[in-house]
Amino acid sequence: MDNERIENLGEKELIVRLSKYMPDNQINDDCASLSINHENLLINTDLMVENTHFNNQTTIAKDLGWKSVATNYSDLISSGCKNFIGIQIGLIINPKTRWDWIRELYEGIYEALNYYGGVILGGDCSRGEANAISITAIGSQGELKLRRYSCRPEEIILTTGIHGLSKLGYLLKTNQIEKNNDFLSEDIIKQSLKAFQRPKPQKKFIQNIIKTRSSSDKKVIGCTDSSDGFYQAINDLAITSNCKAIIDYKKVPKYKNWPSGESWDNYYFYGGEDYELIFSLPQDWANRFLNLDKTSCEIGKFVKGPPSVEIINSPNILNGDSFSHF
Amino acid sequence: MDNERIENLGEKELIVRLSKYMPDNQINDDCASLSINHENLLINTDLMVENTHFNNQTTIAKDLGWKSVATNYSDLISSGCKNFIGIQIGLIINPKTRWDWIRELYEGIYEALNYYGGVILGGDCSRGEANAISITAIGSQGELKLRRYSCRPEEIILTTGIHGLSKLGYLLKTNQIEKNNDFLSEDIIKQSLKAFQRPKPQKKFIQNIIKTRSSSDKKVIGCTDSSDGFYQAINDLAITSNCKAIIDYKKVPKYKNWPSGESWDNYYFYGGEDYELIFSLPQDWANRFLNLDKTSCEIGKFVKGPPSVEIINSPNILNGDSFSHF
Repeated sequence: MDNERIENLGEKELIVRLSKYMPDNQINDDCASLSINHENLLINTDLMVENTHFNNQTTIAKDLGWKSVATNYSDLISSGCKNFIGIQIGLIINPKTRWDWIRELYEGIYEALNYYGGVILGGDCSRGEANAISITAIGSQGELKLRRYSCRPEEIILTTGIHGLSKLGYLLKTNQIEKNNDFLSEDIIKQSLKAFQRPKPQKKFIQNIIKTRSSSDKKVIGCTDSSDGFYQAINDLAITSNCKAIIDYKKVPKYKNWPSGESWDNYYFYGGEDYELIFSLPQDWANRFLNLDKTSCEIGKFVKGPPSVEIINSPNILNGDSFSHF
Repeated sequence: MDNERIENLGEKELIVRLSKYMPDNQINDDCASLSINHENLLINTDLMVENTHFNNQTTIAKDLGWKSVATNYSDLISSGCKNFIGIQIGLIINPKTRWDWIRELYEGIYEALNYYGGVILGGDCSRGEANAISITAIGSQGELKLRRYSCRPEEIILTTGIHGLSKLGYLLKTNQIEKNNDFLSEDIIKQSLKAFQRPKPQKKFIQNIIKTRSSSDKKVIGCTDSSDGFYQAINDLAITSNCKAIIDYKKVPKYKNWPSGESWDNYYFYGGEDYELIFSLPQDWANRFLNLDKTSCEIGKFVKGPPSVEIINSPNILNGDSFSHF
């Protein structure tokens, strides 16, 4: 079995095998962390590869630039980053690529850096067959640590926003769903394309968490982002925190006029490339947070029990596969 | 011209254009640097891309793993790194790749980390057409800064070792030079393959520089590594330090029984993928250094004059192109 091809191993087995070479905090969390002279750094690498994450049909270079910073920063935010320091860029370019494409890629990168903070520190550029961009982002750990392992039974599960839009944007972009149809409003089409092309991880999330904390509250919060899908995020929290998540389908916020039905629920729960935060707080803190951040929602709670996700009050059977990088 | 294909732009023009998006210290030096709570970090990203830097014919996975750490660490050393902290790994894998290849890649990475220091901090893995590895390495800046801009007229130019072997190793590996021939000894073939497959940046270089420094000596040394070729390294120092390098061909150290002739000189001066340090020191310091590090050699000096490289006493015209990443 050792000499199996990766395509036959499957993503889960690959992750298990690769994890033997990784430190624990990187396997079980969104970022690596590093202590330098009492300053804790958060470090994250994300790849965007042509024909895996993007192609000329789905993604213009400027959006790719934005997205490749945003996906990295989402992981930093979901670990409690207070300050974005900068990025290293590894760029693989097919020689037939036109200069304009690279210029626009960097313009998109700068738009994201201007919005979130941080600078380009350095990088490398090389010829290759397919274009790809590898970004390593560095930020400072804030006073509150956000870690997957820190959800506790009886805590309220919250989401900073709505899911499924990015998947719908992707399906529209690739013509797997027609734009001219009876079941999607102009507004939902616009928002879905925006969610897919310009995901916007919550910049103010950490501030809001800190603002609503009382002095007796804990200092490590259970949290992850939903880049691999809404369901996957909850499942990751449940497994790493060793408790059971009960999600109330009726509380899960849908975009206005989001269609109902099994396939739409599956886009919602398993679509991926959403960049919301999924996290849990004690009831009092959750109330204070929901009072401040009106776009966030309570969606369920953690209880004692085997690490798992139970969805109650769902009209449909949810059986989608998680977002796959492989 | 803006919409030109990269292959028509040429590497130099591409670097000029990309440099507009980069901070100065990254354009004109080997590493990016970053100050965290009075600790200065050195950060470097290097890409290794299938069919550009390696293929199954030239490079086994274990050597690729070693090399991808070594190339990064070479840049950290040439900036004055005192301590290797760790690496982030971005891995692009074709699904037909066998698990053994990945396992051996990581074994090679760990061999290098065990030898030099540092750990795997984290990373990302994704599907792609061609395999590629993007490593971002982080180290601590030591008490002496090594920077390309700090060579001064009247300083002695030194090399930590011999060049050209890696290029010869590559030519042997790709059968562009036959192993069975009259002009290469068994020993030189063995050493060349080793230089190509397992380059070994000088681990003790920084210690030796520090040991031989007197209290009145300067604290920023002109230095770069010769990964892009021996000539290119000297040229980079001359341009960034704004002075003229005079290299005495007769002093340039060749490997025992290195053949003579124009093409062999071109392999030597322009071959690339050597990982020696090229640097300059005031005469007294240079003498002390050469006394301690017996494999290093004096090869010339810097003088006032337009930024350029003059090679004196050469029997051949040297007109090779520099090592190209594109």
